[in-house]
Amino acid sequence: MTKARLEAFSDGVIAILITIMVLELRVPHGTGWTALEPLLPVFLTYALSFVFLGIYWNNHHHMFHLVDRINGKIMWANLHLLFWLSLTPFVTAWMGENHFASLPTAAYGAVMLLAAIAYYILQTAIIRHQGPRSRLAAAVGGDLKGRLSPLLYAAAIPLAFVHEWISDALYVAVALIWLVPDPRIEARIAAEH
Amino acid sequence: MTKARLEAFSDGVIAILITIMVLELRVPHGTGWTALEPLLPVFLTYALSFVFLGIYWNNHHHMFHLVDRINGKIMWANLHLLFWLSLTPFVTAWMGENHFASLPTAAYGAVMLLAAIAYYILQTAIIRHQGPRSRLAAAVGGDLKGRLSPLLYAAAIPLAFVHEWISDALYVAVALIWLVPDPRIEARIAAEH
Amino acid sequence: MTKARLEAFSDGVIAILITIMVLELRVPHGTGWTALEPLLPVFLTYALSFVFLGIYWNNHHHMFHLVDRINGKIMWANLHLLFWLSLTPFVTAWMGENHFASLPTAAYGAVMLLAAIAYYILQTAIIRHQGPRSRLAAAVGGDLKGRLSPLLYAAAIPLAFVHEWISDALYVAVALIWLVPDPRIEARIAAEH
Amino acid sequence: MTKARLEAFSDGVIAILITIMVLELRVPHGTGWTALEPLLPVFLTYALSFVFLGIYWNNHHHMFHLVDRINGKIMWANLHLLFWLSLTPFVTAWMGENHFASLPTAAYGAVMLLAAIAYYILQTAIIRHQGPRSRLAAAVGGDLKGRLSPLLYAAAIPLAFVHEWISDALYVAVALIWLVPDPRIEARIAAEH
Repeated sequence: MTKARLEAFSDGVIAILITIMVLELRVPHGTGWTALEPLLPVFLTYALSFVFLGIYWNNHHHMFHLVDRINGKIMWANLHLLFWLSLTPFVTAWMGENHFASLPTAAYGAVMLLAAIAYYILQTAIIRHQGPRSRLAAAVGGDLKGRLSPLLYAAAIPLAFVHEWISDALYVAVALIWLVPDPRIEARIAAEH
Repeated sequence: MTKARLEAFSDGVIAILITIMVLELRVPHGTGWTALEPLLPVFLTYALSFVFLGIYWNNHHHMFHLVDRINGKIMWANLHLLFWLSLTPFVTAWMGENHFASLPTAAYGAVMLLAAIAYYILQTAIIRHQGPRSRLAAAVGGDLKGRLSPLLYAAAIPLAFVHEWISDALYVAVALIWLVPDPRIEARIAAEH
Repeated sequence: MTKARLEAFSDGVIAILITIMVLELRVPHGTGWTALEPLLPVFLTYALSFVFLGIYWNNHHHMFHLVDRINGKIMWANLHLLFWLSLTPFVTAWMGENHFASLPTAAYGAVMLLAAIAYYILQTAIIRHQGPRSRLAAAVGGDLKGRLSPLLYAAAIPLAFVHEWISDALYVAVALIWLVPDPRIEARIAAEH
Repeated sequence: MTKARLEAFSDGVIAILITIMVLELRVPHGTGWTALEPLLPVFLTYALSFVFLGIYWNNHHHMFHLVDRINGKIMWANLHLLFWLSLTPFVTAWMGENHFASLPTAAYGAVMLLAAIAYYILQTAIIRHQGPRSRLAAAVGGDLKGRLSPLLYAAAIPLAFVHEWISDALYVAVALIWLVPDPRIEARIAAEH
């Protein structure tokens, strides 16, 4: 089976998720600066989740660039990833509307952790399908980022109950780690052309 | 006519359906565990419908893999399938918000049954267009799953009025039956390469 | 310029429109049959508009099948069509929630009329770009349906104030006229292969 | 990396944005002409933003027509553009529901300005990747429109506090400037075929 429809479907779901989050930026009733003030945390969480979903789309793009064929397991591993990503608008809105309270902040981390695990499962399913000598297996080699991110998310969940800003700082840190697209994969792509 | 736009359009509709269901997971006002409690049945129904739509997307993908050309009848049979699938968010929300009451549970089964019938009509339209010796006709051969699912849904509708958990168990059972992608089609695809 | 992105963008917009209309089927609070009753007109209007948008998608698909290259004018004529189609969910909900009252019924006809005119402008822009000897020009030849539909919509608008059921009957009639995909285009496509 | 998924993803996001704005056209409770009256400013703002997003889609289409390969920087510059575009429904609804009050009108201009800057950054990232002798660099040459639009938006922001109609007139003016697709790029495309 070819990967075209899996890519198109994933692009569609991520495009919708990244866009419907903006519906939580409820239009204020007033027209003054004070009307905008309560929207600030919602806006910041929106921007964070936009970057978060953008990273997943970027990495998904990079990863499937090295994939030729897919099978049923890869399709379900991909749907599993999309399931956890689909909860992003929910935790984004819950955290944003409650000024980063402890439980919503921890829930945000939990969804991020589960998405990171799902991404790892998907990557493993692809490598298993392609064999250990595949281009992707070589490219992700000692995948430091992929192992570090779940650890940081796992740490952020209990730390949200100590102080929510610790977790928020960790989320921003993970975002920054990933913002640079994986140089190993980019290098490999560049080397092949 | 080529199948590219039909696939893209169906991917788009299913991607949107699978994503807008999450809007029914209304953001709770509180920030404690008790605020999450009433969301549990909504979440479980969401997960069930996510799997349900994922199965349809998977099977649609598998089926059209064996299709080369389409005609007007296939296009309308496909739109007919999308129509019943488009009611999934409605019955999902109705069942989830009412803790699986009898009528909403039966309505969920009715939509599932109508979607299953529409899928069967689509499959028949394709086989009729391709001829009885087509690859799809051979692949679906004695389509046990495709015949069993509507029967289970048809049984679940009246049984929801006996006890709604019987129907819920049947829905989960059908989901599990389909979760494994059709080995006959996969085998045929693998054999051809 | 190639038509691929124009087709993909139009597919996306129509897929979203056909899907978000279902959000107007508000989940009822009760769980009995009486809770479903007020939804009946909303459901019927939803089904009508689903067919209406399905027809546009089908005809768009057929028409662009005969298009090779596009220009800026075609892109804007296509966006103009999408603009009027994008008002479908609004008039659908307004008409459905008011049990087909006169003004909403007339507004529904007005949006349908403007969409039909926009489709005609798009078709004309394509034929002008391709030249009068193009395949599309030959295929639409004496386009009876395309000329009849706007007339029926134009008649339905004032007739909604005589009795709304006259207009509703006209809308259903136009839908039935178009449900069969254009045999001239299909025949031409078949003849070429 | 190829541009196919970047185009598909951008098409998806813009298609969703252009469509969900219509959800702000809330269905009125009444069925008379007076029920439609308060919707007029919302409708006009919707039409303006529809044209605005249509222009971006058109220009995006034209620009990427001259792009062969992309890199990580272009992907992020594109996501950055989509981020500001994604705020269009929010400012559209805020401005429309408040009859073009000063602050919402200025906010609309600010989002338009930031989107214009993001578009310029994206264009620069592409030209930097392709080299100064690329087709795109030649096509945008002395990009008058691209430099004029941000200036007009920047002027519209403070002028909204003098009188909001000045800003509205400027927004309409920018829309009209761009409505004609870039003749230099079209000419170049035509010349190459």
